[in-house]
Amino acid sequence: MNNAMVKYIIGGILRIEAVLMIIPLIVSFIYREDSLYQLSFLIPILFLTATGYLLSRSKIEERQIYAKEGFVIVSLSWVLLSFFGAFPFVISGDIPSLIDAFFETTSGFTTTGSSVIQNVEALSHSMLFWRSFTQLVGGMGVLVFALAIMPQIGSESVHIMKAEVSGPVFGKLVSKLSSSARILYLIYLSMTAIMVVLLLFGGMNLFESLLHAFGAAGTSGFGIRNGSIEPYDSAYIETVLSVGMILFGVNFNIYYLILVRHVKEAFSSEELRWYFMIIGSAFLLICLNLFSTYHSFGRMFRDVFFSVSSVITTTGFLTVDFGHWPLFSRVILLLLMFVGASAGSTAGGLKISRVILLLKSAFAEFKRIRHPNRIVAVQYDNKTVDRDILRRVLNYLLVYLVIFISLILIVSLDFSDFETAFGTVVATFNNIGLGFSTLGLTGDFSELSGWLKVLLSFVMIAGRLEIFPMIILFSPSTWKK
Amino acid sequence: MNNAMVKYIIGGILRIEAVLMIIPLIVSFIYREDSLYQLSFLIPILFLTATGYLLSRSKIEERQIYAKEGFVIVSLSWVLLSFFGAFPFVISGDIPSLIDAFFETTSGFTTTGSSVIQNVEALSHSMLFWRSFTQLVGGMGVLVFALAIMPQIGSESVHIMKAEVSGPVFGKLVSKLSSSARILYLIYLSMTAIMVVLLLFGGMNLFESLLHAFGAAGTSGFGIRNGSIEPYDSAYIETVLSVGMILFGVNFNIYYLILVRHVKEAFSSEELRWYFMIIGSAFLLICLNLFSTYHSFGRMFRDVFFSVSSVITTTGFLTVDFGHWPLFSRVILLLLMFVGASAGSTAGGLKISRVILLLKSAFAEFKRIRHPNRIVAVQYDNKTVDRDILRRVLNYLLVYLVIFISLILIVSLDFSDFETAFGTVVATFNNIGLGFSTLGLTGDFSELSGWLKVLLSFVMIAGRLEIFPMIILFSPSTWKK
Repeated sequence: MNNAMVKYIIGGILRIEAVLMIIPLIVSFIYREDSLYQLSFLIPILFLTATGYLLSRSKIEERQIYAKEGFVIVSLSWVLLSFFGAFPFVISGDIPSLIDAFFETTSGFTTTGSSVIQNVEALSHSMLFWRSFTQLVGGMGVLVFALAIMPQIGSESVHIMKAEVSGPVFGKLVSKLSSSARILYLIYLSMTAIMVVLLLFGGMNLFESLLHAFGAAGTSGFGIRNGSIEPYDSAYIETVLSVGMILFGVNFNIYYLILVRHVKEAFSSEELRWYFMIIGSAFLLICLNLFSTYHSFGRMFRDVFFSVSSVITTTGFLTVDFGHWPLFSRVILLLLMFVGASAGSTAGGLKISRVILLLKSAFAEFKRIRHPNRIVAVQYDNKTVDRDILRRVLNYLLVYLVIFISLILIVSLDFSDFETAFGTVVATFNNIGLGFSTLGLTGDFSELSGWLKVLLSFVMIAGRLEIFPMIILFSPSTWKK
Repeated sequence: MNNAMVKYIIGGILRIEAVLMIIPLIVSFIYREDSLYQLSFLIPILFLTATGYLLSRSKIEERQIYAKEGFVIVSLSWVLLSFFGAFPFVISGDIPSLIDAFFETTSGFTTTGSSVIQNVEALSHSMLFWRSFTQLVGGMGVLVFALAIMPQIGSESVHIMKAEVSGPVFGKLVSKLSSSARILYLIYLSMTAIMVVLLLFGGMNLFESLLHAFGAAGTSGFGIRNGSIEPYDSAYIETVLSVGMILFGVNFNIYYLILVRHVKEAFSSEELRWYFMIIGSAFLLICLNLFSTYHSFGRMFRDVFFSVSSVITTTGFLTVDFGHWPLFSRVILLLLMFVGASAGSTAGGLKISRVILLLKSAFAEFKRIRHPNRIVAVQYDNKTVDRDILRRVLNYLLVYLVIFISLILIVSLDFSDFETAFGTVVATFNNIGLGFSTLGLTGDFSELSGWLKVLLSFVMIAGRLEIFPMIILFSPSTWKK
């Protein structure tokens, strides 16, 4: 373990967080808030700068880091960003409990959107801003993570996209990680900016537009009203957010391809086709199921489209309580929560490319049994998928299931009904953020016991980082010698 | 498709069913039942004999059959045995609806134990006998199925056992399927007979002892009292049944090994070790969880031990309503329902050997990510598991999940709460037979709509035959030309 390099990079990340906190500090000045709020940001800023500086000062003998260090850095960053990010809430007293504040910031940085705040409208402007801003930052973190770390932990989908955009174009234009990251950030922030403008047109003020755009960009879904998006009751705003969420659930490599004028290549992506097909089918099936219960078709289309985009992108914005829809519709939404949106986006869940590969693998096995002497290969994007990639996807599902089941078992110690326990794990592990059953759809996690909030915070990070980095962080053998 | 041979074998199987129906006919005479009951068996006996004779008469040009024919024969047999087996119930009027009677016989032949009979005590002796007798027959069918068909559909666990007992001993003594089957039947029927005797000692009369032994042997769990085993309220009977169920959940190859004095080899089986470890851990964890709610330790041990053995062997006998236990205990029992007992037993579920291989595969992947340059192999019974076997186990889980999820989606059209829908699929697909939530634990499926009963009947057969044979039976391409 190259401890010096780990400290060096973590130190850098903490100093970045200090810089990021300057923005809500400015918000606090703009809204002329009590000086306590300014102090709530100033103290952590100073602390983070000093700690970051101290951590980065140690002498580095060897700059080379390996996969293990990469995992430790990325998981430790998410834990520490969330931990120190909780300070402003605690100091200001807007979220007095450190555990609650840690849960809330983790939920933001992991772009989950689960909340322990019962009355979100009571928060000050600066705190609301910081809470929502963590989502934007978390989304940016995820995109770089997908680019830099996921290929190393064998996240096949990114592998495949890499293979696809390989060759001279990819090589020449974005040969280096840093320049790739810069391009992704540019796309990401431009899309967020467009969204802000569109929301302004819908009658939201700048503050509301910014915060809702952050929630959509990170596909996390912190609202700033107690009823999420429902209080705005505007078809325009709902459409902007629905389409926005869907677009943030697209693999960002696709936007990159469009940017370099490889439009045909971009639209030939199998994941993209499936993504839209799944959204379309879910929309149709739910409409058919709800058909007789709605008086107005327009209202139904609005509610269903918003719910489907909110759920498949694992955002969790709400305009309607679909907890009261018939079971069939609820099961479809539940399935979308597991599927999630595309790899290389800010969404959570298993990711569409993985689900496609799993389905194809199951179908191939069935063909093998029917025709024992035939060699059956799995095709993806018109190429034969490598056996090792397939093995990795299958094993990822296994690890996912093992962790998922263990979590349900642990969580069940604190609940009395199965649906709430199941839903809590789905909401946090798949980074969706919605509540279930007795917790209520808006996802008020405030009633949970302290140890469960801490556990679920780590679950959100594990879900966000596709499990392995977190396991490695907590393996005693990582820290031996 | 070798239609002639399929017809020939199916014809033979129908004539066997005719012979089997003579036994409940005798029961009907013994209890001097109304002649309607005797007719209820005589009519199907004549019909089955005639049809069987006609089917077997067609000229056979080619005796060779392949995997495809094997799948079709086995799945069609289960469907037809269940369908014709329903006739006595309908003719006698004890179960007037054909759909209900079909569900009930399918539940018996697949050793599931789900029931549509609200008042089982109202059934006549001969009908009760036939209902329970299908479980014994189903269990025998499953054992031969495991021996003859499962290796062809790539059921790895049996493969592994085969490899284990291969070599001179296995080769010399049971080189042929028929002789292997005969030995398995001998073991199976002897164990059932011992159970009957032990139950007689517990104060049950011969009729009760026989029927309960059939339910334990098939690990299916049809009771003959409305409260299942609870009305007997006897620690002795509960112990006999608990231990009996556990022993019927052991891979029958183990008994064979013991019979040929390979005791050491038998007890070195990894599946056997895990089986007992899982039972022990589940027992302990549930006891710890219930500790404070029970007044008497003895009572708690009895209830927990019985419930754990009933659930892991997918039997479904009941002595206590564990639906009211704390969620943690219920989740453990739910997990056992998926794990099931050993391969090569009469139990349902995923089977322990598969679950072990899946867990080992997940763990191996984790090791690979930690040490990218190390070659990591999965070991089972001290041998390296072949890549293809592992791939098959992983894909079996995928196919299982795809079907499971699709079933929940379909079933959700007829239910309003998730737990009942989920539980209904678990109960039938894993061949457990218990009801869930609004259906009540004793598994009263009588309230379900007709189409759902028919669907669930086929689901029970699919679960029993490890999915693939049923998919092949319903594939249009199987029947082309």
